[in-house]
Amino acid sequence: MKKIVISTGGGDAPGLNAVIYAVTKSAHYRGWEVYGSHGGYKGLLDPDELVRLTPEIVEDITPTGGTILGSTNKGNPFAMPVENLAGEVQLRDVSDRVMQNFTRMGFFCHIAVGGDGSLEIAHRFATEKGMPVIGVPKTIDNDLQATHRTFGCDTAVATATDALDKLHSTAKSHDRVMVVEVMGRDSGWIAINSGISGCADVILIPEIPFNMDLVCEKINDNDLHHKHYAIVVVAEGARAKNAEVIHKATDAHEVGRQEVLLGGVGEWVAQQIREKTGKDTRSLVLGHLQRGGSPTTFDRMLALRFGGAAVRLAEQEIFDHMVALSATDIIAVPLADAVKTRKKVPLDSDKVLTAREIGICLGD
Amino acid sequence: MKKIVISTGGGDAPGLNAVIYAVTKSAHYRGWEVYGSHGGYKGLLDPDELVRLTPEIVEDITPTGGTILGSTNKGNPFAMPVENLAGEVQLRDVSDRVMQNFTRMGFFCHIAVGGDGSLEIAHRFATEKGMPVIGVPKTIDNDLQATHRTFGCDTAVATATDALDKLHSTAKSHDRVMVVEVMGRDSGWIAINSGISGCADVILIPEIPFNMDLVCEKINDNDLHHKHYAIVVVAEGARAKNAEVIHKATDAHEVGRQEVLLGGVGEWVAQQIREKTGKDTRSLVLGHLQRGGSPTTFDRMLALRFGGAAVRLAEQEIFDHMVALSATDIIAVPLADAVKTRKKVPLDSDKVLTAREIGICLGD
Amino acid sequence: MKKIVISTGGGDAPGLNAVIYAVTKSAHYRGWEVYGSHGGYKGLLDPDELVRLTPEIVEDITPTGGTILGSTNKGNPFAMPVENLAGEVQLRDVSDRVMQNFTRMGFFCHIAVGGDGSLEIAHRFATEKGMPVIGVPKTIDNDLQATHRTFGCDTAVATATDALDKLHSTAKSHDRVMVVEVMGRDSGWIAINSGISGCADVILIPEIPFNMDLVCEKINDNDLHHKHYAIVVVAEGARAKNAEVIHKATDAHEVGRQEVLLGGVGEWVAQQIREKTGKDTRSLVLGHLQRGGSPTTFDRMLALRFGGAAVRLAEQEIFDHMVALSATDIIAVPLADAVKTRKKVPLDSDKVLTAREIGICLGD
Amino acid sequence: MKKIVISTGGGDAPGLNAVIYAVTKSAHYRGWEVYGSHGGYKGLLDPDELVRLTPEIVEDITPTGGTILGSTNKGNPFAMPVENLAGEVQLRDVSDRVMQNFTRMGFFCHIAVGGDGSLEIAHRFATEKGMPVIGVPKTIDNDLQATHRTFGCDTAVATATDALDKLHSTAKSHDRVMVVEVMGRDSGWIAINSGISGCADVILIPEIPFNMDLVCEKINDNDLHHKHYAIVVVAEGARAKNAEVIHKATDAHEVGRQEVLLGGVGEWVAQQIREKTGKDTRSLVLGHLQRGGSPTTFDRMLALRFGGAAVRLAEQEIFDHMVALSATDIIAVPLADAVKTRKKVPLDSDKVLTAREIGICLGD
Repeated sequence: MKKIVISTGGGDAPGLNAVIYAVTKSAHYRGWEVYGSHGGYKGLLDPDELVRLTPEIVEDITPTGGTILGSTNKGNPFAMPVENLAGEVQLRDVSDRVMQNFTRMGFFCHIAVGGDGSLEIAHRFATEKGMPVIGVPKTIDNDLQATHRTFGCDTAVATATDALDKLHSTAKSHDRVMVVEVMGRDSGWIAINSGISGCADVILIPEIPFNMDLVCEKINDNDLHHKHYAIVVVAEGARAKNAEVIHKATDAHEVGRQEVLLGGVGEWVAQQIREKTGKDTRSLVLGHLQRGGSPTTFDRMLALRFGGAAVRLAEQEIFDHMVALSATDIIAVPLADAVKTRKKVPLDSDKVLTAREIGICLGD
Repeated sequence: MKKIVISTGGGDAPGLNAVIYAVTKSAHYRGWEVYGSHGGYKGLLDPDELVRLTPEIVEDITPTGGTILGSTNKGNPFAMPVENLAGEVQLRDVSDRVMQNFTRMGFFCHIAVGGDGSLEIAHRFATEKGMPVIGVPKTIDNDLQATHRTFGCDTAVATATDALDKLHSTAKSHDRVMVVEVMGRDSGWIAINSGISGCADVILIPEIPFNMDLVCEKINDNDLHHKHYAIVVVAEGARAKNAEVIHKATDAHEVGRQEVLLGGVGEWVAQQIREKTGKDTRSLVLGHLQRGGSPTTFDRMLALRFGGAAVRLAEQEIFDHMVALSATDIIAVPLADAVKTRKKVPLDSDKVLTAREIGICLGD
Repeated sequence: MKKIVISTGGGDAPGLNAVIYAVTKSAHYRGWEVYGSHGGYKGLLDPDELVRLTPEIVEDITPTGGTILGSTNKGNPFAMPVENLAGEVQLRDVSDRVMQNFTRMGFFCHIAVGGDGSLEIAHRFATEKGMPVIGVPKTIDNDLQATHRTFGCDTAVATATDALDKLHSTAKSHDRVMVVEVMGRDSGWIAINSGISGCADVILIPEIPFNMDLVCEKINDNDLHHKHYAIVVVAEGARAKNAEVIHKATDAHEVGRQEVLLGGVGEWVAQQIREKTGKDTRSLVLGHLQRGGSPTTFDRMLALRFGGAAVRLAEQEIFDHMVALSATDIIAVPLADAVKTRKKVPLDSDKVLTAREIGICLGD
Repeated sequence: MKKIVISTGGGDAPGLNAVIYAVTKSAHYRGWEVYGSHGGYKGLLDPDELVRLTPEIVEDITPTGGTILGSTNKGNPFAMPVENLAGEVQLRDVSDRVMQNFTRMGFFCHIAVGGDGSLEIAHRFATEKGMPVIGVPKTIDNDLQATHRTFGCDTAVATATDALDKLHSTAKSHDRVMVVEVMGRDSGWIAINSGISGCADVILIPEIPFNMDLVCEKINDNDLHHKHYAIVVVAEGARAKNAEVIHKATDAHEVGRQEVLLGGVGEWVAQQIREKTGKDTRSLVLGHLQRGGSPTTFDRMLALRFGGAAVRLAEQEIFDHMVALSATDIIAVPLADAVKTRKKVPLDSDKVLTAREIGICLGD
């Protein structure tokens, strides 16, 4: 009987369990056995962390957030933080042990679900160790060049839009400016999609360095149209044109996503608006809310189709590739191509054009 | 100052107001005036039914269901039911009056938002009367060949999936079979998308005539896997292979969508399951719930982009075309091509394949 | 170590799992063991159907619909349908066997979660067999006299109100009358609460026999106020004043809730409106949607408090009582009192008065 | 024709529009005219800020957040910030002018919807100026002693619980501690209700000064039960037993609610957990999300009943009272009593007891 193993790596994204569901059921359909590796590659380092996945076990997981394969950030086997009994931590290359276990367990394929970090590791296993790997792309930021969409992003956008819908009424009732910081360190997909859907007045994305004066001009102009409030959406990676003024926030940024909570770019923008317009201005960081919750139907469908397609690739023995969405089709893309470049919001896209033409200020 | 007029026709779909929003704001951005025609073409028959649309008026409409342009099913100007004071109704061709008013009001473009019926009328106005028309496609069933997606469908699928999620727990608690009839007279998009996302055991679509014995076989097989319940999704246009047995339901069908409520194909399937498996089986018709509610972010984005693109086409004077989604781009498609054929669920698509491989019975 | 057993009986209601959670955790807190009886009393007839409940097992169940103790409608031990190997079914009194097993297993208390049927059985076990029983009231219809509220009802009302919100926009866009049939065979709690919250024009409840002419008068009056649509909420147990005219629907009713789907009172009302007003009228039966889904916070809180209070009663050995909400407190009520009378919507309550004064027609 | 005026004051709360709806419709039902005062008392200072409220105007507002009467924080007429053309601001007593306008416009009753601040002002108008005032209580914090519940709180709790549900899956997938700061400066209603419903491990409320060591003990204990994550809910007014250590956060607090975003008690608690347990810990401030959105059915019902009851009080000329919920009835309470004391979470209530017994740490 053929046996495959599946792992989930990197940050959490709604839809991970739907991929696991589809892989388990599609493999079962072919008479294969499926095993899940807990904690990324941990199950391939310690067989106690492998779990048999059956249709019964996965029955109800598709609508759930998170991943039943547990913690997803457990490091890179090519440079794994290893702790001894004295509590000392060293980085060690344990990739050979992973490969030995993979072979010893008799797996004929590893389906690696993850973002660009995880996919790059998968690609190294394919090329350097000869592991038959198939990738399933997952970035909540939708910033992988090789696929039109990744799952998780639609749910994150829905959560952010729902927050904007809620803030509208309260901003309007109090004549307030509400600044909402959403995810997106390098690309502004969540910001631009939720901002347009959620009727923001201003959307600031990493792709467009912003001019604070133009932002305030838009907010002041609202008053002329008897609209005494405004909604400002800021991607966490957005930066002012004049880099210096936002130096402190940038520092915080380098330490990691969480520090942003203590005065990231959203709060900085709010302070500037408060000072320059005199308007009552509040900021809010949506943070991990965007990673949680039941996946939208769009994300469930995409995740299930990705899972089904990954098993078909395994059957056809097309390894070192990842599944991807191209228009309405699922295709296979070489992993080598997949991890090359990040997908930015194209400034000449009709989305950006539409944003401008329906009166949204993009800070430039 | 340039003036345009926008109308919404045919059945209700979440996202109509987002189109109106984007058209109003994008036209305002260009310094044009925008007018909305109440009740389809009614505003072009009676100027009292025209309403000036300004940014202030449309400010809060994007997240709302329905259409601010009021009732959408007010007939075809080429064969309009006209009632005299005695209450007698006659079909009359009032298309010339529509065209005269259009000219007299000084409109330079008509943006017609509608399904294939409305788009066909728009195309006739373009070719027979010389009206500069731009179409915006709207079918909740997603069955227009010329565009990858139409707005409204994602919201309908979300509503149906939410219903399936709710029915799962109650079906499981009572060892029941739940049959859910969803929209889709000629194509099974809503059924296949909500059924896969909502973890149905059986999905019956118009594209695949179903064999009731295979459906019951799947439901009985569930028992073997300690799953004593089942969820069955039936598109309203699904038909059994043996056409005769469902004759009565088909008759009801011909009279219109609403009659289906009184014993449509969903209830027929439920009765068959009850008889053939002896299981406690209930049926439910989602009906108009699928047309209502706030549009999902996917539908809002698509509707806003369609609205923005329609105004850009108007600016470029590309008439007798409709906007459409092609992969990730908005394109212009000749109206003549747009209304030719319905888009069916392709039986060789990876969606259908995935459904089968994750264990869903499609009735064949 | 003390051991208790919990069972859930009767129709499904959101919040059952929250009761199980609170009972399990509160008992664990006291060092007791908790067992769940699958399928109502089935676990007390066959120990294989008993399941050990631990904090780990119940960890994630509070937000989920249904009941982890499986099918809830498995009969009354005082008159249990028993099937022999030849498939013949007889009603048998197996209550002594239940009591023997209860004693043999060493349980010191049975927490019975259920509606008036289940509570009556529990009361018989207490008085006739000496079983130390504590009841937790559950009726989605909120019709138990002895408690101000039961869990499940708030979620059902929320689902119905959400449906009404969705139907508003589509009714308005199409100038339609939408008739929505909701649960409530003997009392109109779900209808009156969802109807008022969801801005219905007409609400018909079992407590007020309705006059169809007054209903149509209200719908016609809407036209005078430029409101060309209407929303009508009908409890499944609502009846016209002239009982004869609705005879057929009543027959269907007697056979059970499901038959109502095929032309219950909702569709009958819709037909009458269609005939008498000439307006385009559609009907919809919400059915089991109202029993499913994640409980609202109100229902979660009430269910958790009920579960906690039941364990405190067990500790104090106050048996043959049920927990109940009185204003903001949880109290204990003798089971004998609990099952005496159904709680109707009081016609002189401020809710009914408010409904009338904000312009809702109650059919009288 | 009798004329009444309605105002909404203080912070935003879901349900305000439902009160306005019920007041307008119930007054219309009696043949009265209704006027809304924009911006709290602004409409009684400047008649241009009065708006006629008709059934047509309020038709669709019940399900919406915010208030159609615009900005709610426009000051106290007994000490109103008044700005001259030079931009200088002085506090002035304009209460006589309010009373003169009230009389001049011919209003016979003022329905004042607001929190304790607004109700106190209303009471002063009643006693000092002889204004016939009826109060409708509104505090999202549910902290008014004189009524069992206020509207808005259930929606805020629902929003917070929804956030906790979302964070669970992501906390579990990443072995993280998530600290969520919710509203509640003086009372912990939102924290205790959402924390219990949302399955938090720790809930910190203003009523119970917390011991950080006990909090960390609970989080460490989770690991023993194979639960490597935790959810901590902190009311913004919660304080550590040792007051000094949280001094900085307290300072920030005094400046106003918004400053808390930059390192309030939630972030302080997160830092402590990070240091003392070594666990990956993130904090999130829900802030204004809790004030927005469509009211839950519970809040809609309560708000509509309050509005209806207020008009009945006006009819009976019972002034200087406010409407209140007592168990399941709406009663009238003298405004003098209403504003006396804040309602705290009673530490001996079954809610608090249940929280402890289902294993939640309350920090003591």
